[in-house]
Amino acid sequence: MTASYDGTRYCGWQRQANAVSVQEKMEEALAAVFSRAIKTTAASRTDAGVHALGQRVCFDLEGCKIPTGKIPLVLNGYLPDDIAIRAAETVDDHFSPRFRAREKTYQYNIWHNPYPNPLIRHTSVFYPYPLEIDFMAEAAKAFTGRRDFAAFCASGSAAVSTVREIYECSVDMAGDMIAITIRGNAFLYNMVRIIAGTLILAGQRKIQPADIPLIIDSRDRNRAGPTMPACGLTLIEIKY
Amino acid sequence: MTASYDGTRYCGWQRQANAVSVQEKMEEALAAVFSRAIKTTAASRTDAGVHALGQRVCFDLEGCKIPTGKIPLVLNGYLPDDIAIRAAETVDDHFSPRFRAREKTYQYNIWHNPYPNPLIRHTSVFYPYPLEIDFMAEAAKAFTGRRDFAAFCASGSAAVSTVREIYECSVDMAGDMIAITIRGNAFLYNMVRIIAGTLILAGQRKIQPADIPLIIDSRDRNRAGPTMPACGLTLIEIKY
Repeated sequence: MTASYDGTRYCGWQRQANAVSVQEKMEEALAAVFSRAIKTTAASRTDAGVHALGQRVCFDLEGCKIPTGKIPLVLNGYLPDDIAIRAAETVDDHFSPRFRAREKTYQYNIWHNPYPNPLIRHTSVFYPYPLEIDFMAEAAKAFTGRRDFAAFCASGSAAVSTVREIYECSVDMAGDMIAITIRGNAFLYNMVRIIAGTLILAGQRKIQPADIPLIIDSRDRNRAGPTMPACGLTLIEIKY
Repeated sequence: MTASYDGTRYCGWQRQANAVSVQEKMEEALAAVFSRAIKTTAASRTDAGVHALGQRVCFDLEGCKIPTGKIPLVLNGYLPDDIAIRAAETVDDHFSPRFRAREKTYQYNIWHNPYPNPLIRHTSVFYPYPLEIDFMAEAAKAFTGRRDFAAFCASGSAAVSTVREIYECSVDMAGDMIAITIRGNAFLYNMVRIIAGTLILAGQRKIQPADIPLIIDSRDRNRAGPTMPACGLTLIEIKY
């Protein structure tokens, strides 16, 4: 299934003992529809507060009498209004939404204005200070390619390899909204939010676009920028 | 002051005895900043659930020691995160934000997709059924001009005259979001939401664009479309 959600009130996708997760709500809705316990697996373990428009979620259809195409409509009737299914299709029994993912796209939104905008406060970060957008856009280009992104990985990650390939990293401005779009084969823990924080440094002219390759090569988390808040991040699309 | 707010949890701009209003929150913040009770007047009494990006709010600056340009920053520190001040300027003692308004712009947002979008659920209405956008856009044009809009006024309105002038009424589509933009000298109670409901009828081909002038001329509320939900409506701008 393709799922979208407002991550504001969730501890992330993955079930946790003492917090409400998107997975828990999803499995509750599935249990209500199919009258049995159903386990789900997702392509991406989005963090607390991170949103999705194109999360991918799998479960075992065994015994399901609802045509696959009707599942979104039925399931949406049981989901809270901050989670919705957008599409459903049948895959083979061995399909893994996580390990078969070929390409993921994330977007990081920055409301760049002297004053906050209450209408988009849950899906963007408010940044009222000066930013050189051209500088950010130039710095963004330096993230493309197959590289070791250890400098852009939060500690606590269990990743065996920190090599990832970024196909696109761009910065666009529409009115007072800055959108950082990153497309790659896979991402490390907090990688997009650290890249966004590093692009903010470039926008502040605290670092130069030419510094980005050096920061990557250093493999030193301390040389990259801060981890930006979760609320600005949305998982847009996953391709297989 | 120019104020923006997410109207979701408010009974509208205006103070009410048993509900939380934007005005109440604004006057509480002003009282905290200026250490005295402050009355506000606004350009538009937005209804429960209606949003604003460009509401205009006046209060008496007497005794105020904060430079006018600093008021937004100071006041935002005391306002809840669903209300923000965007600008402030000094006006003459007899200024009325309501009666001096020359032009108001509203936008009505419709998420037109088979499935809901949780990320914009508070600022748009979800409409999953077929709509002919070209038909809606043509029908929209018929609302422009100085006309008696009695057919587009909810009962209970205290308006003496139901004549208003609409400068622009347009329908635009960006992806799956339909935006109805209406610009006019003033609006009747629920007028924009009833026009949006009438444009939905046109999109469903239940009425023709050529019917709009006849519905206006009828002055009969029963011939216009339904009042669309408040959450899709945003007061965008007011000009003086």
